[in-house]
Amino acid sequence: MKDIVVSSRVRLARNYEDLPFRGRITGEQSEACVQRTLDALRELPEIYQLFLLRSADEVERKALMESHLISPDLMQHEEAGAALIRRDEKISIMMNEEDHLRIQAFAAGDDLGGAAENAFSIDDALQRHLSFAFDPQWGYLTACPTNTGTGMRASMMLHLPMLTLLKQMGKVNQLAAKLGLTIRGIYGEGSEAQGNLYQLSNQVTLGRTEKEIMDAVSAVAKQMGEMERVFRQKAEEKDLIILEDQIFRSFGLCCHARRMPLKEFMAHWSNLRLGAALEKLPLSLEECDALLISAQPGHLQKAAGRALEEKEMDEQRASLIRNALNGGTK
Amino acid sequence: MKDIVVSSRVRLARNYEDLPFRGRITGEQSEACVQRTLDALRELPEIYQLFLLRSADEVERKALMESHLISPDLMQHEEAGAALIRRDEKISIMMNEEDHLRIQAFAAGDDLGGAAENAFSIDDALQRHLSFAFDPQWGYLTACPTNTGTGMRASMMLHLPMLTLLKQMGKVNQLAAKLGLTIRGIYGEGSEAQGNLYQLSNQVTLGRTEKEIMDAVSAVAKQMGEMERVFRQKAEEKDLIILEDQIFRSFGLCCHARRMPLKEFMAHWSNLRLGAALEKLPLSLEECDALLISAQPGHLQKAAGRALEEKEMDEQRASLIRNALNGGTK
Repeated sequence: MKDIVVSSRVRLARNYEDLPFRGRITGEQSEACVQRTLDALRELPEIYQLFLLRSADEVERKALMESHLISPDLMQHEEAGAALIRRDEKISIMMNEEDHLRIQAFAAGDDLGGAAENAFSIDDALQRHLSFAFDPQWGYLTACPTNTGTGMRASMMLHLPMLTLLKQMGKVNQLAAKLGLTIRGIYGEGSEAQGNLYQLSNQVTLGRTEKEIMDAVSAVAKQMGEMERVFRQKAEEKDLIILEDQIFRSFGLCCHARRMPLKEFMAHWSNLRLGAALEKLPLSLEECDALLISAQPGHLQKAAGRALEEKEMDEQRASLIRNALNGGTK
Repeated sequence: MKDIVVSSRVRLARNYEDLPFRGRITGEQSEACVQRTLDALRELPEIYQLFLLRSADEVERKALMESHLISPDLMQHEEAGAALIRRDEKISIMMNEEDHLRIQAFAAGDDLGGAAENAFSIDDALQRHLSFAFDPQWGYLTACPTNTGTGMRASMMLHLPMLTLLKQMGKVNQLAAKLGLTIRGIYGEGSEAQGNLYQLSNQVTLGRTEKEIMDAVSAVAKQMGEMERVFRQKAEEKDLIILEDQIFRSFGLCCHARRMPLKEFMAHWSNLRLGAALEKLPLSLEECDALLISAQPGHLQKAAGRALEEKEMDEQRASLIRNALNGGTK
């Protein structure tokens, strides 16, 4: 499924039972929330880095958001917001977001199980020392009732260029909605899915077990992947030249352009990933997915070590992409 | 001047004094026109090929037109139209066009002198055996009075992308007109100059010597070239990234596209030639100019050995261009 699924993610919402929810929590209590989490997780063998929102600059925040390690919502807690991030960026524990804790775990490709395992290992480590707000009937209690129950959101990032091109996403959305799942564009403005990337996730957290949620997301992802593959195959059989032209034009532009605006890049990226999935380009899916992140504004600015103007950013992006594709400056 | 001037051309209009002009000429006389020309030129050391319009197919005609070896006007003389073409394609003697003879000579780059020398060598060879319609006061007599006098048209094909981009061609046209010269788009439909290519030539053939005509064309070409170079230099100094982005995007697309419509190619070609002239691309001006011709419809079909549909043509063109640029199919 790596040809379709870019990454998997599991998020658990948790709240300490002795601290008030957001809105009523004091500054001191927010600090306590961070401190007790750090203390409880000191035993973890891997290296974690603490990120305090108040001491991070705009560039750093942006880069972490692009990697999904922190959420836009965390930004609204300027004073107390924090995140504990495993060095390999596979786990991030946000603190003082909408809930006291948002435990997130990430895995490349189609691996909700792997992500869940990591997320629950943190959940377990914390529960060895601390108690979460939990109701025997309702399950985990959360600031917003839509997360109550498992507190889990299982999601997969899917690359669906042919379903998008052939205007099948409306149909696919309906299919997902029937099973309590939802599909959103990612890195997009409004409803537009830049890069033909979609995030499939569960809408409902209550009345289902964690396993049921993950199974539903996996099953629908699999079905969407099969549909996408059928259309890819049809295109290869019927319109090979058109398909290859589209892929290689993006490759050619990415190998040689000197300025690359983000929006244009996202369209080319989709073609590069399709080309990598169909083994038409000298580019692996992993290289392609790494490029998606490193070409985002926050990451570009982080690499440059300073804030960049749009113009500079487009040049740096073009340069980064050229190097990544080994087109170099020839 | 090779960075600006693609090619130079000299054409001489000549008519046999004992044969009626077009419109009154009989079929038999048209045949005689061809025969006596062939006979008179038998002494030439180089290898010439005779092309008879009536026995050539559409593809061959098109390819010869694209190389300017025959003219659209020759097409209107289906029965008697012919051309004697030197194997290196530097000389073409059209017979039974508007005039009995149109002696054309071509040279790469800025070399009107070289072209003229070749054209006059044919003129001399013919006049050793035959007599042309010539009036001591008016000079060579021609079917259309606009060619009377020297019967000469001296022209240069100029590549002027920056003058076009910066909308200076109106000014340049006025400058040329004042000196009795004219500028036309080439390979273009209507007024649009595809590939930013322009043909500068003399409008007036009467009351000036051949040398004066060639000097005027050369002088204006030189002036246009200097203007173009100033704008190129300014762009390199002020907007280097924009300029390079434009050049390398075209290069990237040409190296990788699988379908390349003619009109799109002409726009990229202009950027390729600019990039070659500014020594930014791994491409010589000669390779670039050869590609301009070989990517035209007639040449593509000639290479394929058959008539091609538009779709096939776009694919063949893309393939030809990829190979020429060594981008290959990587």
